[in-house]
Amino acid sequence: MEIQVQRPVMENNEMISEELSSLFSLKKILVLNLISSPGAGKTSLLERTLSDLAAEFRMGVIEGDLKTDNDARRVAATGAAAWQINTDGGCHLDSRMVREALSHFDLDNLDILFIENVGNLVCPVEFPCGEDHKIALLSLPEGDDKPEKYPLLFNLSSVMILNKLDLLPHVDFDLERAEKFARALNDDLKIFRLSCRSGEGLSNWYAWLREARQAKLL
Amino acid sequence: MEIQVQRPVMENNEMISEELSSLFSLKKILVLNLISSPGAGKTSLLERTLSDLAAEFRMGVIEGDLKTDNDARRVAATGAAAWQINTDGGCHLDSRMVREALSHFDLDNLDILFIENVGNLVCPVEFPCGEDHKIALLSLPEGDDKPEKYPLLFNLSSVMILNKLDLLPHVDFDLERAEKFARALNDDLKIFRLSCRSGEGLSNWYAWLREARQAKLL
Repeated sequence: MEIQVQRPVMENNEMISEELSSLFSLKKILVLNLISSPGAGKTSLLERTLSDLAAEFRMGVIEGDLKTDNDARRVAATGAAAWQINTDGGCHLDSRMVREALSHFDLDNLDILFIENVGNLVCPVEFPCGEDHKIALLSLPEGDDKPEKYPLLFNLSSVMILNKLDLLPHVDFDLERAEKFARALNDDLKIFRLSCRSGEGLSNWYAWLREARQAKLL
Repeated sequence: MEIQVQRPVMENNEMISEELSSLFSLKKILVLNLISSPGAGKTSLLERTLSDLAAEFRMGVIEGDLKTDNDARRVAATGAAAWQINTDGGCHLDSRMVREALSHFDLDNLDILFIENVGNLVCPVEFPCGEDHKIALLSLPEGDDKPEKYPLLFNLSSVMILNKLDLLPHVDFDLERAEKFARALNDDLKIFRLSCRSGEGLSNWYAWLREARQAKLL
């Protein structure tokens, strides 16, 4: 029954998402939808990326949270354009919210737009927001079984980032096991092991970003 | 619009939840709904609790996951009665699912029933399942800002468990900050700092469980 009443909401979301996707293609903006559990490090990844690539790309961030504008303030401190959406209890961003947020960005002067979704491994996956790629973050303390237990995210993402690599000596996380499960769901998945804290592995993520941006210009 | 179409689903859930609550009171079973982010340690807490209190209480577990019966197998290994619900993509358990699972338990020989919800800080909070108490788990690597960013869970829970205390030296987590925010949302919140890995702090949680079970018998 629940699926039935949800269907019109999801169909409407898909329609607006396709409209946004066309707009982003026209403007040649690479759009990435970051999805993870609460506290996996989405905002930390953005802080590092926005700072390290500031000279290379014009970047903006749409932040999604139930409450507070903490994250928008954190990423704005890097100098990037940032806009906070508060869902007021809602468990995911949707394409209508993203469309409304766009009025706060200068789309003619933007190379990459990051959408930092609400911390949730389930619901955001079902609501595309016009993005080119979903980026799944999984932090080591969460456990290596998460791709198996929350398969849809890893199935639909282009990239899986294994974050908090600096904690590897202190937690039970089998990197190969997590990667094997994720690849079984998705042959094409790119996987980057990194630590936003130490900076280890970030250069591979940056190389992928450059390629994805280049592909958008073709 | 989304809220509108959801309302009948939520009202129906409340109705079945109240029916379950009456049943649990009649049978004098203490029912606890465990809610956290994915990987915060709900299953580990259950493994420790079921083992350590096996001689004291007759305990059962309803496990909720999108996929796999890994968690039910983990807790059943302790000897406790366990039943796995697979939501097949659904982001929370609801009272109808719990009602159906009950046929797999002997309710006349049960003191405590744990419901391990789907890993999600948002949606499970809005779907009571007949429980006496919600138990919120927050693990230190997730960050001390989570009570502020996901307030409803901490507002409606009786207990907040700060888990993975053994990782404190390796992460940026201000225990006082997290506790202050949580208490601002909920004066009556009991807070336990513990590590399921080292066992530190578990005795305080067990003491609370004994009290809560005793209160249910009055």
